[in-house]
Amino acid sequence: MNAVDRKLKKVREILEEKNLDAILVSSRSNLIYLTGYPFFLDDREAFLIITHDKSFALVSGLIQTELKIKAPFLTFSDPNASPRRLSTYLSELSKKESFQHIGFEANDLTVEEYTNLKNQNITFVPVNLNSIRNIKGKEEIEAIAKACTLGDQAFSYILKEVKPGITEKELAFLLETYIREKGAKPSFEAIIAFGPNSAVIHHLSDETKLKSKDNILFDFGVKVDNYCSDMSRTVFIGKPSAEQKKIYETVRIAQEKSFEYLQNFRVAGEEGIPLTRTETKSKEHLREGNERQDPKILAKGIDSVARNYVISQGYPNFPHSSHGIGIEIHEAPSLSPASTEVIKPGMVFSVEPGVYIPGFMGVRIEDIVTMTEKGPKILTTSPRELAML
Amino acid sequence: MNAVDRKLKKVREILEEKNLDAILVSSRSNLIYLTGYPFFLDDREAFLIITHDKSFALVSGLIQTELKIKAPFLTFSDPNASPRRLSTYLSELSKKESFQHIGFEANDLTVEEYTNLKNQNITFVPVNLNSIRNIKGKEEIEAIAKACTLGDQAFSYILKEVKPGITEKELAFLLETYIREKGAKPSFEAIIAFGPNSAVIHHLSDETKLKSKDNILFDFGVKVDNYCSDMSRTVFIGKPSAEQKKIYETVRIAQEKSFEYLQNFRVAGEEGIPLTRTETKSKEHLREGNERQDPKILAKGIDSVARNYVISQGYPNFPHSSHGIGIEIHEAPSLSPASTEVIKPGMVFSVEPGVYIPGFMGVRIEDIVTMTEKGPKILTTSPRELAML
Repeated sequence: MNAVDRKLKKVREILEEKNLDAILVSSRSNLIYLTGYPFFLDDREAFLIITHDKSFALVSGLIQTELKIKAPFLTFSDPNASPRRLSTYLSELSKKESFQHIGFEANDLTVEEYTNLKNQNITFVPVNLNSIRNIKGKEEIEAIAKACTLGDQAFSYILKEVKPGITEKELAFLLETYIREKGAKPSFEAIIAFGPNSAVIHHLSDETKLKSKDNILFDFGVKVDNYCSDMSRTVFIGKPSAEQKKIYETVRIAQEKSFEYLQNFRVAGEEGIPLTRTETKSKEHLREGNERQDPKILAKGIDSVARNYVISQGYPNFPHSSHGIGIEIHEAPSLSPASTEVIKPGMVFSVEPGVYIPGFMGVRIEDIVTMTEKGPKILTTSPRELAML
Repeated sequence: MNAVDRKLKKVREILEEKNLDAILVSSRSNLIYLTGYPFFLDDREAFLIITHDKSFALVSGLIQTELKIKAPFLTFSDPNASPRRLSTYLSELSKKESFQHIGFEANDLTVEEYTNLKNQNITFVPVNLNSIRNIKGKEEIEAIAKACTLGDQAFSYILKEVKPGITEKELAFLLETYIREKGAKPSFEAIIAFGPNSAVIHHLSDETKLKSKDNILFDFGVKVDNYCSDMSRTVFIGKPSAEQKKIYETVRIAQEKSFEYLQNFRVAGEEGIPLTRTETKSKEHLREGNERQDPKILAKGIDSVARNYVISQGYPNFPHSSHGIGIEIHEAPSLSPASTEVIKPGMVFSVEPGVYIPGFMGVRIEDIVTMTEKGPKILTTSPRELAML
């Protein structure tokens, strides 16, 4: 089964599960996922309507030519049709294809768009399609791995450009230019933060100049073939103080705890099975249900072993959590303390603990991991040991 | 009245008009508009709740520090509160501030988000806030003008880099690097299309190499202080053929028709008043209602005089239309044939006719215009005459 069919099959599984005749795909990420076309405007440029055996596209004339090349499996609307006339289009299509129950992405369609649809002779059923991107295919993981490798290269490059007096903005410019020169794109605006700025988690790179004894927090990503990487590293200019070093090591060890947690389990099919150490300190975090028969790698456990370690060292809890990654920089699975997801082969996610002391400094170390049938694999390979420039 | 108060006043006018106690602001563009903070993630990072005399913010801990500096007029949520817990926050706030009727952005909140809110003891009323950004303030128009000027400079620069054999992607990289070097950002991914590719309206720059006799279509923009510019130019490598020249001149004259249309009217207050030529050929497009007492510059008229000219010359209608611009690359006012808007001083919009002949070539010329009390002003100044390189 080719990649497109495999992806459509996932949509159709939801179609059958929910007893629907069709599903309306509207979200930018799911449109990119199903077509491979890198929709780059926020405007509604296309809708897909997936039935049990057909795939229709209502597409703006502005991109129809190129989308046809990327996704020839679609049955295209008339070139003069507009995604703005979705209601009319659905009404006509539902008569022609005799469908009545249509699922829609309730986490994407706005209240206004939905209200404009409601007047029809169709029953609209809210569905959440984001789970179709939960488990990545081989070619998706390859794209993320490529992005991670380019991220590692970009990080090696940017370290050579670090010098006293350079500003955060200048470094961010050099980093992004390097990425673009390689034919890729930044997956989000790079965060480059010096000294106290690094305690601000989403600091906007500014005119701050680099001073000796500063730390630098880098948080950036690369987009390759529509797929994102994401990594964070924190380095020091000169020898860090004992306190700086303690903070760094706390974060590094916290991340190690997450990796150990992952390595303790081999994933077999739907469930996780303990690999070597069946008795681990963090066992409680890992499992739910009947512990012996049904051990699982809980997404929230990966994050919480790191979080608990940070807190145990007397540092404040960090207000972010690790996250799934793919077409979106933040997507399923969630690894937050509230997550109920279980890690399965094919999932790709960040592992990123941090410590932030306002006015002093912040440290974050972030890597991207994919779970394979044989266990976890870290896709970002830049060194994590404390580095001085 | 300072800029922030002027902006809040616009929200409060809607509050009063709709008899509401508060308005929930959720859209990225309106959050940027009201706070000046350049929200850069798609994630819900903040919500504002504007009452008759107070402004509350429910903000992610990740950006709270920086948002406080940008928008000190806001009353901030507890740093540990999360935008994900909007429902709880609104419930508590509504009790404390005793409000009951809350407007929400129906064109932004998703069906799922709305459903999660609905269980409350609050009446939610759909409102459309986009009109608050319709008429720009002085500092907004200045930011757009700056972006347009940098766009003009970037265009002069990129023309010097054009040479046989260069690819679309290489030119796009140079253009974007120039913009970033100046401390600005591209407002969208630059479209650079050679020869037949230029007939594809939103062509994705690729590895196509420049050949002699090609035309090049540039469509790009710059973002300065959160505000966008947008411009298109089409140039020729060597002497264009008679047919190429005829297409170019058709588009150039079509755009001139829009400019003439605008210049025929001085805008006085809410209504447009004919300036000099009361009898123009395109008069029919300009006015509605009682022609003598109530002449208006209809937004759709600006676009349609150009469109009609293109069609009158035997070329196909173009599947895009001119558009308002500001924080978003496409925002109100709409200038499409379906628009009912009237042009008023402070509005900023594109004027962009085009001709597209599949497999042969496309021409688009696009400029940004602001309407002032004294009449229209074109903010982009790159030459529009046919240019050969």
